[in-house]
Amino acid sequence: MRTNKLWGAALLCGVAVTFVGARSQPETPALPQEARIKLTVPTVDYRTKWVSLGSFSLLSDEPDKGAKQLHVVYTQPESVEAYLKTGTFPDGTVLIKDVYGTKTEDLTTGRSSYADTLIGRFVMVKDKSNKRASVSPLWGDGWGWAFYEGAETQKTVTTDYRGDCLSCHEPARNQGLVYTQGYPILRSARQ
Amino acid sequence: MRTNKLWGAALLCGVAVTFVGARSQPETPALPQEARIKLTVPTVDYRTKWVSLGSFSLLSDEPDKGAKQLHVVYTQPESVEAYLKTGTFPDGTVLIKDVYGTKTEDLTTGRSSYADTLIGRFVMVKDKSNKRASVSPLWGDGWGWAFYEGAETQKTVTTDYRGDCLSCHEPARNQGLVYTQGYPILRSARQ
Repeated sequence: MRTNKLWGAALLCGVAVTFVGARSQPETPALPQEARIKLTVPTVDYRTKWVSLGSFSLLSDEPDKGAKQLHVVYTQPESVEAYLKTGTFPDGTVLIKDVYGTKTEDLTTGRSSYADTLIGRFVMVKDKSNKRASVSPLWGDGWGWAFYEGAETQKTVTTDYRGDCLSCHEPARNQGLVYTQGYPILRSARQ
Repeated sequence: MRTNKLWGAALLCGVAVTFVGARSQPETPALPQEARIKLTVPTVDYRTKWVSLGSFSLLSDEPDKGAKQLHVVYTQPESVEAYLKTGTFPDGTVLIKDVYGTKTEDLTTGRSSYADTLIGRFVMVKDKSNKRASVSPLWGDGWGWAFYEGAETQKTVTTDYRGDCLSCHEPARNQGLVYTQGYPILRSARQ
C-alpha cells in the first residue's frame, strides 16, 4: 500500500523514496517500553529544556521568496557536553529536527524568513552498538530514525530508515551521518 | 570621530546610522555593578543554558546564493515562562541575538544555509520602568540596547540606542519593539 501522506518526508529528503504504508509500526518490539518510547517525539519540552544545536535555512524554489523551510535541531544538554569532549554523540543521544514552513517579510534587516507552521519532526536516537537494528527497520547505522508529521508525536510515517531516511544522510557519513557543520555550538562552547 | 568598524551593526540595521565612535562607553554609571554587567554579553553559556526563541534567515543580495546571515535569539528560561503567562517580557529579560555569516551548500534537502562565522551579538535588556534611561544613552523605550562585534563581549560599539538601534525596531513597536513573530515557542509551549 502506498500513501500520499508522506509528502513531508519526501519533500525534505528531496530524493525519490518508497514507502510501504503509513500504518503505525511496532518499532522495537523486543526492547523494553522505555526504549520504544525514545523513538517518538519526547514528552519533555525540548524547545525550552534541551539545547538548540543550530538551524538550516532551505532556499525557496523561487529564490526571491527567501527560505521555504527552517530546520531547527535540538538535543539533550548532556549530549552537547559529551560531544565537546569526545567529538561524537553518546549512546542515547536524541536529535529532534523541527521542520517549519516559513513566513517571509521585508524587515529592516532585509528579506527575512522565520518559522511559521510546523510541518513535522525528524527524530534520531543514537544506538552506537546497533543492538536495536535486528528488531526494527527503523534502526540501523548507529541510529534510530523516524519522521512525525505535523503535531503528531507518537505515530511515525517512517517504515524503513534505509529507504526513508538514509539516502539523505549518506553525504554526512564521515560525520556520523549528521550534518554537524550547521551546529556552531559543537565547534566551541564559547565564541 | 567616525569609524568604519561598525559595518556589522549598520549592515544589520539596513538603514543609515550615525556613530560617534567605537570607544568603550560608561554604560550605566549611576547603577550598581550588577546592572552594568547585564548590558554586556552574559558570562553564562546562554547557547546551552538558555532558550533559543527562534531564528531569522536573511536572504542574500543575490538570492540564488541563499541566506547571507542567520540570526539566532536567546533568552532566559524564566522569561519564556513569564511571556507565555502574561504576553510580555518581564523586567530583567535579556535577549541576545547571535548574528552569523553563513555557508550555503546544496544538500539533499536543497540549497541550505547554516551558521558559519559569528559577526556579532545584539543584547537587549528589559527595563520596564525606564529607570535606566536617564543615566545612559544605551537605555530607553523600555530596554537597554547594545551591539558587540565578533567575539567581543564587553565593549559595545553602540553609543546611542536611538540612532544605532531604534529605527530598526520601530516597525515592531506594537510588539514591545521585538520581532516576536519569529519566535514559535512564544506562540505555544507545545505544538
